Amino acid sequence: MTAIGLRREIDRFEARTPRSRELQKEAVRWLPGGSSRGVHHEPNPVFVDYGEGHYFYDADGNRYLDFILNATSLIMGHANPIVVEAIAEQAGRGTGFVGPNETAVRLARMLCERVPSLDKVRFVNSGTEATLNAIRAARAFTGRHKIAKFAGAYHGSHEYVSVSVKPPAGPHGPDGPPAAAEFHGQPPSLLDDVIVLPWNDLEVCERILRRNADGLACVIIEPIASTLGYAPARPGFLEGIRALTTDLDVLLVFDEVQTLRMSPGGAQEMLGVVPDLTAMGKMVGGGLPAGAFGGRDDIMALFDPRGGAAIPHAGTFNANPMTMAAGEATLKHMTPDVYGRLNALGEMIRGKLRAVFDELEVPAQITGIASFFSIHFNAEEIVDHGSASRDDAELKRALSLGLLNEGIMLGSTICTLTTESEVDELVDTTRRVIQRVRE
Amino acid sequence: MTAIGLRREIDRFEARTPRSRELQKEAVRWLPGGSSRGVHHEPNPVFVDYGEGHYFYDADGNRYLDFILNATSLIMGHANPIVVEAIAEQAGRGTGFVGPNETAVRLARMLCERVPSLDKVRFVNSGTEATLNAIRAARAFTGRHKIAKFAGAYHGSHEYVSVSVKPPAGPHGPDGPPAAAEFHGQPPSLLDDVIVLPWNDLEVCERILRRNADGLACVIIEPIASTLGYAPARPGFLEGIRALTTDLDVLLVFDEVQTLRMSPGGAQEMLGVVPDLTAMGKMVGGGLPAGAFGGRDDIMALFDPRGGAAIPHAGTFNANPMTMAAGEATLKHMTPDVYGRLNALGEMIRGKLRAVFDELEVPAQITGIASFFSIHFNAEEIVDHGSASRDDAELKRALSLGLLNEGIMLGSTICTLTTESEVDELVDTTRRVIQRVRE
Repeated sequence: MTAIGLRREIDRFEARTPRSRELQKEAVRWLPGGSSRGVHHEPNPVFVDYGEGHYFYDADGNRYLDFILNATSLIMGHANPIVVEAIAEQAGRGTGFVGPNETAVRLARMLCERVPSLDKVRFVNSGTEATLNAIRAARAFTGRHKIAKFAGAYHGSHEYVSVSVKPPAGPHGPDGPPAAAEFHGQPPSLLDDVIVLPWNDLEVCERILRRNADGLACVIIEPIASTLGYAPARPGFLEGIRALTTDLDVLLVFDEVQTLRMSPGGAQEMLGVVPDLTAMGKMVGGGLPAGAFGGRDDIMALFDPRGGAAIPHAGTFNANPMTMAAGEATLKHMTPDVYGRLNALGEMIRGKLRAVFDELEVPAQITGIASFFSIHFNAEEIVDHGSASRDDAELKRALSLGLLNEGIMLGSTICTLTTESEVDELVDTTRRVIQRVRE
Repeated sequence: MTAIGLRREIDRFEARTPRSRELQKEAVRWLPGGSSRGVHHEPNPVFVDYGEGHYFYDADGNRYLDFILNATSLIMGHANPIVVEAIAEQAGRGTGFVGPNETAVRLARMLCERVPSLDKVRFVNSGTEATLNAIRAARAFTGRHKIAKFAGAYHGSHEYVSVSVKPPAGPHGPDGPPAAAEFHGQPPSLLDDVIVLPWNDLEVCERILRRNADGLACVIIEPIASTLGYAPARPGFLEGIRALTTDLDVLLVFDEVQTLRMSPGGAQEMLGVVPDLTAMGKMVGGGLPAGAFGGRDDIMALFDPRGGAAIPHAGTFNANPMTMAAGEATLKHMTPDVYGRLNALGEMIRGKLRAVFDELEVPAQITGIASFFSIHFNAEEIVDHGSASRDDAELKRALSLGLLNEGIMLGSTICTLTTESEVDELVDTTRRVIQRVRE
């Protein structure tokens, strides 16, 4: 790629988004950097006007075929009539009550019947709140307070998972990666209380877990590592972690906030590895703010408020009927057939993208599973945080901008509205953009 | 009160709610205790069918005049057409995008222009996420990790505020109340890192804060203590805490998750005490899951994602356009006049309730301010966690059940639909129920 190629895409993007740029000027007056999200888009973010199916339209009237789908959460696309109707109807019946509602019970039942690890479930408002409470359950159940997580893994924004999320990417020694603080001023005890494990290195994981087992409440893991490009673990790795945690009497928590979209029962069903506790989010609320966590009966009983819960847990919006109605409409639509079709298209998108980069002789790798895909401009096999961190960032940026200029928002997933035609649009436009930025 | 009086109310309640009881049997199969909320209602919870204005209807078709309003969040009542329309319209335009939206910018501006402490603001999904991030900001800004909170105060469910939420209610010594764990298996470092202060005892607070100032990032406080029945602090107490924190170079965080409903600028505007950071929730999202936090420019700049934030902070549903649309519709409606009218009715409800208990010669106290009210069956002045914890729990339960049997859900607040007629209905029914349960 030439620097001129990238510059041309930036110029084109700026010419297409004057209204977004104006809005950003107003936004930065009231929000730090103009945003409440984690990522800033250079040279300016794309302000969204509205979404429709697989597309969204920006403030300048540009249309984008969307492969981000609000961070993989919109499994049925934007403003799907099935979900819109459920939301509008519930809005007219009220958005929240302190008393329970039937919809929440039906959604809870649907989750428990589908997801292997769930005897019982509770609803919260985000994936962050889901992992927070799953970890708390593990602590209260075991009476131990340390937890183990993987280097480079993201599990939301509460304090005890804000360790080694984006640590230095060097190789680790026989004792594994050190725990790394994420913010200035974090309590130093976090670095003692959070044990950091290397993804895909079962031998080192075993050594670390055996050494720390006495104080350890749980291991939290995404069964597919989203921050490594949804790369599946090496064969036997997840099974090994499951066997180890069982052997050591340490609870295993799956973060299925994203991977619930892999099958009716999430990654745990597809991969056949069942944790003790599961945290969910994103699609579980049908596009509205949502989280859920659940697991074994004997653990979840800690939250039973009858007679005073061992873990008192309140939340004004927990299981609110709006989120429950949108979630129920979504899960009802997501039958095994629909997942099957979605995952076949995922396989197709990965295969066709691989073929394009081979054809163009661009060193790239396409990772992913089920409806996830990710492009790495890196020839080395993606096996851990280190290998996933090495990438040709300039080329990736040029591709993203070039796709935006062609009306495509590059992301890592598809939705129930995706057909071979949208797959081909992404693949063909990718070919064109890569050729263009290399000129 | 006689035990027979309470028994009669329970029998009557059971006779009125057979369908709720059936639903609860199904609910406990899938959710621990059948619930995702903090409180279990005996003998069975009231399952909600729908809400309409000041009322909601349960699964058995009973109507209730609602003074809980989803934990004070529904300042415009249930399914207010203004909010319903905003929600339904936005649902048709999409529920979430990774890109920013104009509505969020307008809502951010409205908050910053109204709430004295807010130079800039960020949106999250709950009050829990709001206090979490405000505390994190204080830590990253000061480079110190300890925080101070008050005994008996609730600030959401993340780990560092889950200390001394419901501690033993005894008197404290000159060193203040000890930090008390809330769950089995909590990290022991929490009890060192969270300093617990006694509400309304400025002298002891000063001693504790001066002793701990070196390691202290912030003091977090509800300007009106909701868990003490919204009892205002003693004159000078809040001002004293503000002066002390300024003097010690410790940040002051106001938890205005509930108190934002006191005036356009929240409790800080009404009471004239301005913190460095503010956490918000409940009404800020117009009834949908919402939180927000903000404050001084130099502190909030830590979240600016341009060029990489000092505090990276993601969130799939942060500032989602549904919550933003409902929040904007609500805040637009909440003009200074509307707050004035609401607060006058709050004063009326407190006055009329006091008169009823005087008339009936029941030792009771009505606390509250603005649109909040709380009944304590306790003659002693409510000044701290200890005095607020002593109550005639049996009589309170009989009153709550008796009111439910008369179609009133007792809570602690009113809404823009409240008129003198609803106030009188609560007051007159309270008189009747108290007389009845004493027989």
